[in-house]
Formats: sequence, C-alpha cells, structure tokens
Amino acid sequence: MASTKRIMSGMRPTGRLHLGHYFGALLNWVDFQSRYESYYSIVDWHALTTKYQDSASVPANVFEITLDWLAVGIDPEQATIYVQSAIPEIAEIHLLLSMITPHNWVEREPTLKDMVRMLAQDESEAREKATYGLLGYPVLMSADILTFKGELVPVGKDQESHLEFARDVARRFNNTYGTDFFPEPKPEFTVTPLLKGMDGMKMGKSYGNDIKIADTADETIKRVRTMVTDRTRIAKADPGHTDLCEVPWPWYKALANEELRATVKDECENAKIGCVDCKKRLGGLINDRFAEFREKRANLANDPERVFKIIDYGNTKARKVASETLSQMREVMGMIDWNDSQKTWSKLMKAKV
Amino acid sequence: MASTKRIMSGMRPTGRLHLGHYFGALLNWVDFQSRYESYYSIVDWHALTTKYQDSASVPANVFEITLDWLAVGIDPEQATIYVQSAIPEIAEIHLLLSMITPHNWVEREPTLKDMVRMLAQDESEAREKATYGLLGYPVLMSADILTFKGELVPVGKDQESHLEFARDVARRFNNTYGTDFFPEPKPEFTVTPLLKGMDGMKMGKSYGNDIKIADTADETIKRVRTMVTDRTRIAKADPGHTDLCEVPWPWYKALANEELRATVKDECENAKIGCVDCKKRLGGLINDRFAEFREKRANLANDPERVFKIIDYGNTKARKVASETLSQMREVMGMIDWNDSQKTWSKLMKAKV
Repeated sequence: MASTKRIMSGMRPTGRLHLGHYFGALLNWVDFQSRYESYYSIVDWHALTTKYQDSASVPANVFEITLDWLAVGIDPEQATIYVQSAIPEIAEIHLLLSMITPHNWVEREPTLKDMVRMLAQDESEAREKATYGLLGYPVLMSADILTFKGELVPVGKDQESHLEFARDVARRFNNTYGTDFFPEPKPEFTVTPLLKGMDGMKMGKSYGNDIKIADTADETIKRVRTMVTDRTRIAKADPGHTDLCEVPWPWYKALANEELRATVKDECENAKIGCVDCKKRLGGLINDRFAEFREKRANLANDPERVFKIIDYGNTKARKVASETLSQMREVMGMIDWNDSQKTWSKLMKAKV
Repeated sequence: MASTKRIMSGMRPTGRLHLGHYFGALLNWVDFQSRYESYYSIVDWHALTTKYQDSASVPANVFEITLDWLAVGIDPEQATIYVQSAIPEIAEIHLLLSMITPHNWVEREPTLKDMVRMLAQDESEAREKATYGLLGYPVLMSADILTFKGELVPVGKDQESHLEFARDVARRFNNTYGTDFFPEPKPEFTVTPLLKGMDGMKMGKSYGNDIKIADTADETIKRVRTMVTDRTRIAKADPGHTDLCEVPWPWYKALANEELRATVKDECENAKIGCVDCKKRLGGLINDRFAEFREKRANLANDPERVFKIIDYGNTKARKVASETLSQMREVMGMIDWNDSQKTWSKLMKAKV
C-alpha cells in the first residue's frame, strides 16, 4: 500500500449496476484500492431512507451489487468491501453524532429537498412520505465516513456540498470535545464521463434506458441499437454530425482510443457508415470491454458460497476498525466504553477518591 | 413471576435522585418488579439529547443512579437493570424505526417544543441548540420500549401523550410489514403524590430545592427546616392552616399514616405546635422511612466492584432480549439477519432458483 490515507465510498443496494456506475465510480474505485486504504460499503440502511417498504429486496440486491463490484475488479484483499448493516457500530456512531448535529443543519440540506421531491407528487404527500430517517441521511452518511476516519471521499466536481456536511460534523465533534479525533474528509475529485441513457436522458435503472454490467453481449447489442443518434440525419447518405449525435458519440469518447474515435468521426461526417452499423460497432466495443467482467460475474453468481465468504471477510475487517473508532469515540466523550468498561470504572473510582 | 407482561421504564443519569423520583417512580417500580417482567433502563443516550457537552459526567451519574435504585429495593434478580448504551441493538433498532417514522410526527411532538424552550432563551438560540438527536428523542424512546416488546409503560395521568408516539410507531411498523410483531405499549397509570421542593416550587435537582435519597439524616433535617409552610401564620401562637401549608403538609400526606396525619392537623390548627418543631418531626419521619435505604446505599457505594457486577449482569440479560428482538425484526423486514446470515442467504438462494 503506497499510502495510508483512507478513502471511503458506498452504493445503495437497489439492483444490478449499469455502465454509468462503472465509468462514474467503480473504475475510480479500482484505481484507488491500490493507492489508498479503501472502504467500500453497500449502504443498505441508506436504501431504507426512501424504500423502507422494500426492505425485503435488500438481501438479493446486496448479492447482485457484490457480484458487480467483484466482477469489475474490486479486490477484497486490497479494499475492504462490507455491508453497512453488518456493522452495528455505525448505527451507534450515527446515534452519537445525531446528538451533536444541529437540527437546522439537516433541515437546510439542499439534497434533502430533491429527495423529498423525488418521493412525492406534492407538498402534502412529501410531508407524509419523508421520514425522520430520510431527514437524517446526511448524518448517517457522516457516520459512514467518520466510522472509518475517512480522509478522502470520491466526489464529482458538482457534488462537493454532499461532503461539506460530513466535514461540518467532524469539525463540530472535534470542537465540542476539544480533540482532533476525526479527520475532516476531503474530496477526491473524480471525472465522470457523461454517458447518457439509450433515450438521451440521464441513465438510470428506473428509466429502463441503461446497459447493465450483467447484461449479455446480445442484450447489449440490442440496447445500443435503440440509442438516439443525430436527429438531423435522415438518410444514410446524409453526412452525420458527431456533435449532434446524442448518445453513441459520447460513449465512443469514453470507450474508444484516439485512432478509433478519428475513424468514427470521419466515417460519420462523410456518410461512409450509417448509424445502425456505427452502433453495432459501439456495441461490440462495449462487449469487448466488459467480456471478462461478465464472465467473472457469471462464475461468481454460480458460486454464492464464495461470494458470501468474501462479504463476510470484508465485514469482519470493517467491524474491527469500526469497533476501535467507537471505543475511542466513547473515550474522547468520557462515556463508558463497554468494550473496556473496567477501565472506565477504574478511572471513575480514581476520580471519586 | 405472577404475570409475563413486560413493563419498561427508564431514567436519565443526570445525578443523584431525589425523593420526588422515589415517590413518583421508584416506589411503583419496586411494586411492578414482583408482578411484571420489568426492564429498567439508565438511558444515558437520552441524557445526550440535551447535554451532549456533558457526556463525561455519564459514568459517574450511571453509578449514582444505580446506587439509588438498588438502595430503594430495585432487585436485579427480579427486574432487569441495564444501561442503554450497553445495548447497541437499541441504537440499531432506533435507526430502523427512524426509517419508518414520518418526519412530521417528530416535528409536531408537543414535548419537543418544551424541551427546546428549556434549552434556549429565544427562538434563534433554540434553533442552534436543538440537535437532530433531540428532535428524534421520541423515536429513541420508542426504540427503548419496543426493543423489549414492552406491553406496559408506567405514566402519570397527564403524560399519556408521551406513550402515544411509541404506540404509533409500533402500529406503523406492524402495518408497513403486515405483522403484529410489536405490541402497542399500554399505559400503566401511576399516582404521583405532589411533593413540592423546599421553596414550594416543583422539586428539581437544578433548582436546589430537593432532598436526595442519598442525603444524610442531618442534611435532611436541615433541608426540611427551609420548607415554606403556612405564610399566613405569623406567630407560633396563631392557629395554622394545613390547607395553606405549602410544603410540609403534602409531605405528611404522602408519608404519615392516618393517625399521625390527624395528630399533625390537630396540633397545627389548634396552635399546639410551631412550624419549626412540626418540620423537625417531618424530617424525622423522612429519615425513618429512608434510613435503611441510605445505609444500603452507603454500603454499596463502598463496594463499587459489586455495583459494576450488578450492572453487567443486567446488561447481559437485557442484551439477550434486545438481540432476539433485532434478529426477529430483521426477519420480519426481510433483511439480512447478521446473527444468522447463513439462513438469510440460503432463503435467498432458494428464491432465486
């Protein structure tokens, strides 16, 4: 491990991951794991903030997301892969942090308003659907990061505000108890290629416009065939415009090397190739890139025992760190450390004499 | 145990208990422990909702409150005496319940407004001081009760609304997951004699107008001497009025038998005794009532090892129940039961086939 800096990130287990997740996050995570002490969490409690009725889907989704992570090269030896709800210390650290986090901090969190808007049609439905736990999701996110004393958190350029909350909570804890116990997590900025969904909109599972890591080569080709291209190009003989090509061209930019990109641009803009064939080529490019991942994923899916052992291994590693943090946190706060209550009591008795 | 009904109650560890705590709560608890399966919690996390800066005082206060409980006859064999923060399952159950509890339920909780008012001088200070954890105290209280599937909670006649919240949360969980898992806790109404502080105001540690269980006989006599009596009685030769006697007479009503009460009334209203002597007699009455408790308390205070063992014993009993509840709760929600993850996974695999 070249550096001892700790990086922490997580994903909600809401289903199989798509290529946006890969290029936007997992590709970076694979890079981080060789450079940082990496903690990657399947944040199943977070999934409950908006989908508490769907709690029964959590186990299957944890399994699927683990397959995706392992398939693309997240390495359980280099990184610590774990499930949030397997680390009860996070719930307790969340509770302790909730006691020092001003109510108006969570109320003013701008992303909360977006989430509530997503959940409901109107103001009154929103009020009914938003739970106390949803309101507290930035506190829970802070607990996720601070439990592992995360120093770095990967964020996109426009998402720094998400991290600001955790920084504020760390600072508040340190100021309240006169300590420098929690590092203030810093952003590790990542560049995310803008890969749109097949219909030109934001790619998302719920929009049905995505390509999954787990999709077969055939499924991928079929999906790519539906990509919206250059709407101004009517006939194959018309020259195309890569800058007007809504979906495939940005994908080429993310996936193809310089040489291929030049070829695509030339063939498109000089009407040497039609969109149908061009998209078939793109599908092939995607399939080449993901073939090995998909094979690995299929093998793992057939060996659930092994997957569970990997999760269990990561959970055990994560719990050890979380338990230490909680112990130290109680010590800093002067509370009883139930992992070492004898020490607390004996200190107390000395103080009384 | 005559009944298997479970009763749950708790106290914040904020210092030594006074006689109001005894007559208002502990006296009932001693009665309950022989009739119900009783869970008595030292709710140290609750103490943090308003006093997170004072977390370092928690261990000593846990020790003091345990001494008070044991001294007055709470029996660690009959009841389960435990410290909230020693039961991490409560933090996790709190987190799970927070996901199903509508935000507007906590916002509209009337006692919250009182607590915020207590904390701050004005609206803007209140906003700064109220934390996310304070907002959620009724959710945490619900977790306290539901963790032990409490069927009864002792409440005064005017406090039923406190329990209403926990009933609503239990019902919401049951409705959401189509179960009758949580019983809706019912009030066990208790009658609390109105024992005022020495100055005629509400008795409270922070007002400095109380008598502690732990006070010595001398301290008690001195405190009682300061009790406000009948303000209309100027000279010892004037007849007194028990119905105008602000503090001592209500104490006599709570402590004295019928015969003594008749004597006191006669001597007061016929000017046979002055207030000074009458209060000396009341002090003696209090000291007689608490002499044995105080002796037991002093002995326990000199044997902290034994006290810690008693706490540890109760914690272990409580954790066993809490851990079962959490396991079953995860099962009901269809989530992974990390105490028995193999079972969850094997169910999952069957579902996939």
